[in-house]
Amino acid sequence: MSGPLTILVTGRYDAAEQALLRRSAPGARVEFVPGLAAVPELVEVADAIAGNVPDDLLGAARRLRWVHSPAAGVDTALTPGMLASDVVLTSATGNGAIPLAEHALLLMMMLNRDVPRWLRAQADRRWDRFTHDELAGRTVGLFGLGGSGLDLARKAKACHMRVLGMRRRPGPPDPAVDEILGPGEFHRFLGACDFVVVTAPLTADTRGVFDRAAFEAMRPTAFFVCVSRGGIADDEALLDALRDRRIAGAGLDAHGVEPLPQESPFWGLPNVIITPHNGATTEETARRGLAILADNLGRFCKGEPLRNIVDKAAGY
Amino acid sequence: MSGPLTILVTGRYDAAEQALLRRSAPGARVEFVPGLAAVPELVEVADAIAGNVPDDLLGAARRLRWVHSPAAGVDTALTPGMLASDVVLTSATGNGAIPLAEHALLLMMMLNRDVPRWLRAQADRRWDRFTHDELAGRTVGLFGLGGSGLDLARKAKACHMRVLGMRRRPGPPDPAVDEILGPGEFHRFLGACDFVVVTAPLTADTRGVFDRAAFEAMRPTAFFVCVSRGGIADDEALLDALRDRRIAGAGLDAHGVEPLPQESPFWGLPNVIITPHNGATTEETARRGLAILADNLGRFCKGEPLRNIVDKAAGY
Repeated sequence: MSGPLTILVTGRYDAAEQALLRRSAPGARVEFVPGLAAVPELVEVADAIAGNVPDDLLGAARRLRWVHSPAAGVDTALTPGMLASDVVLTSATGNGAIPLAEHALLLMMMLNRDVPRWLRAQADRRWDRFTHDELAGRTVGLFGLGGSGLDLARKAKACHMRVLGMRRRPGPPDPAVDEILGPGEFHRFLGACDFVVVTAPLTADTRGVFDRAAFEAMRPTAFFVCVSRGGIADDEALLDALRDRRIAGAGLDAHGVEPLPQESPFWGLPNVIITPHNGATTEETARRGLAILADNLGRFCKGEPLRNIVDKAAGY
Repeated sequence: MSGPLTILVTGRYDAAEQALLRRSAPGARVEFVPGLAAVPELVEVADAIAGNVPDDLLGAARRLRWVHSPAAGVDTALTPGMLASDVVLTSATGNGAIPLAEHALLLMMMLNRDVPRWLRAQADRRWDRFTHDELAGRTVGLFGLGGSGLDLARKAKACHMRVLGMRRRPGPPDPAVDEILGPGEFHRFLGACDFVVVTAPLTADTRGVFDRAAFEAMRPTAFFVCVSRGGIADDEALLDALRDRRIAGAGLDAHGVEPLPQESPFWGLPNVIITPHNGATTEETARRGLAILADNLGRFCKGEPLRNIVDKAAGY
């Protein structure tokens, strides 16, 4: 007979949150630790860890069966050790889908109407009235049709837009997506869009797919928006496309290097809006993430199937 | 027998637009004039005028039967002379409903997420990541349920919001509006909202209804957004509510005095976003306005009922 399950939880949780997580894992020993490196004796006996586990600790965790990533995207959790191991990886995917879709829509509207121009005029107390575009009638292409992509599709429909979607795996049609294209139609997809919005995870398949040829395939009047992960766009290719106005502009919440270094040229481009990987940073996202973890703790303790299991080969 | 109908059109229309309007009024004499005051002899014989008609010219226009306002809101067209006359007044209402609803949603999102903070950080090349709110789960109250109000209701629903509507006249329910309240429930309506959005026309009934008591009835965490007309809010009461943080902030596209004077304190309030009555200023709005005028020209020449006839007593 083994003793009670040992579950390590890293990350900041207040007393009420810790109490909720403990209640979710009845009978288990739940330890809240600031970091794993400081508690090697706990890592060695842990049955589950909520938090990212570096490869050296993963090797030392002999009893480990389950790791839960607090993030929705697991690109950083999918270390070589994790990819090679039998440990089940789950994610918080879905926790921030709705606010992320809001953020993408906000960036689209800010680019569509040149919001920075209005804020500059306000700072100068200038009445600067100008003709701008509207979203209605324009085409948005969603690169990625997961939770945030599909939620954005519904918002775009309410804005009277045409919605194209691109996804790797075939899937059911969605009433909010007018046409779903596959990876073989990438350049046709790009050429049909007034806005291209990246909501896809960073995987071996998506890394660098927005290369020079991709930005060439976009309309010169089109905007590029990325709210999921940097690295899906080749930063040098994106920079050149923006500087040379081969595309109209970009709204970037996810960046190739984060925090974006002070010397990054992206900050200063007049046709770029930068936000600091902040699209889904809401109290509700934290609450939904906590609920997913609590649910999975309960399932783990009861031996039930876990939610949000990552397909390690696919990368999400 | 009278001669052909004489129709005066003021405002800027290019050659193609002029040709379209002429084609819409077969058999009529259509004169494009830069202003009415310069052509008293034409005003005297005009059967119809597209443009605003000052009272002195209205008195001189003995044959005038129809005036078309190029604006959606007719507060300035409803002069004492116009109110007293039998001349039919039509408007361009509906021309900008969709982009106006987009603008209201944009202002809501900018306030909800403190967009100016991100743009300041970008200007300073600072990675300023902070927790913000999301629209989902919040309540928006629409003061006015015309074209822009109902379109905004659908957008708010796609953002997973609760939608309250307030309108003067009873009307049919709308699937995008969770609850419709009447004028007698104004303060209850205000107290239930996280966002109050004014889309109503400026009329004798709406002038100054957002007074001190109204802002007191709002939640201290709530935002006030006005995209239709200044004057519906009492500017002094609004200023005090914003300065004293009795409400959280405001997004103002319509202002009591326009252009907003350089010395107006609204420009400098940190919790206010100012745009220069610019929400619906798109090429599509101009095109839709032209189509409404062209349609009405055709109807007028054929003696058919006109579209968008203003209820002068109601003011819209």
